[in-house]
Amino acid sequence: MQPPDTLSTTFAALADPTRRAILARLSQGEASVSDLSKPFSMSAPAVTKHLKVLQRAGLISQSRQAQWRPCKLQAKPLMEAADWVAQYRQHWEERLDRLEDYLQTLQTDIPTTGTPTKENIP
Amino acid sequence: MQPPDTLSTTFAALADPTRRAILARLSQGEASVSDLSKPFSMSAPAVTKHLKVLQRAGLISQSRQAQWRPCKLQAKPLMEAADWVAQYRQHWEERLDRLEDYLQTLQTDIPTTGTPTKENIP
Repeated sequence: MQPPDTLSTTFAALADPTRRAILARLSQGEASVSDLSKPFSMSAPAVTKHLKVLQRAGLISQSRQAQWRPCKLQAKPLMEAADWVAQYRQHWEERLDRLEDYLQTLQTDIPTTGTPTKENIP
Repeated sequence: MQPPDTLSTTFAALADPTRRAILARLSQGEASVSDLSKPFSMSAPAVTKHLKVLQRAGLISQSRQAQWRPCKLQAKPLMEAADWVAQYRQHWEERLDRLEDYLQTLQTDIPTTGTPTKENIP
């Protein structure tokens, strides 16, 4: 069996709300494992397990400094994921256009009887 | 255990190269399960399993027509995934800027001796 490709590893790492919340926290700046554990009602080992998934996907790095080992966001895999998803932009834009057209049709169909005009305002 | 949220389901569905290839094929237009199976060296049931994952994630729909049941790309979950990833754009743009600055430094440091100038061209 082949090892998963980069994009598959990235998407698999993003397929969890806790891991996405960790990335959101790291987008504000570096943080220690204990800082990252605080907002979640889960044990440090559980958080460490999520961090390992993110680290294997190259989405975070952990440096070694004297007093602490801060985690840092690494945006390259996110850029590649964004590039992949952007190929489909045309499809959702067409969908939005169709919704807009439909809304326009609905608005055109609303009967205008009863709308105040210069003539019917007392 | 809570059911997975929409974004997690989308990212999990995208975390497979065959499923991404199926979406790429469907971005060209509707296709039957047998059309979708052709490019892959896998059985129809294996492809059907992937289609079920994509369908559960709302990434494709399968309509019922007289002769065939074509699969169709549904772009809404991709738009939501793109929106989520786009939050991190600033981070990869900063990264690209730093790389560009570094490249600039390297180019400035290249010694210019030997480069033809007005004076040393015979």
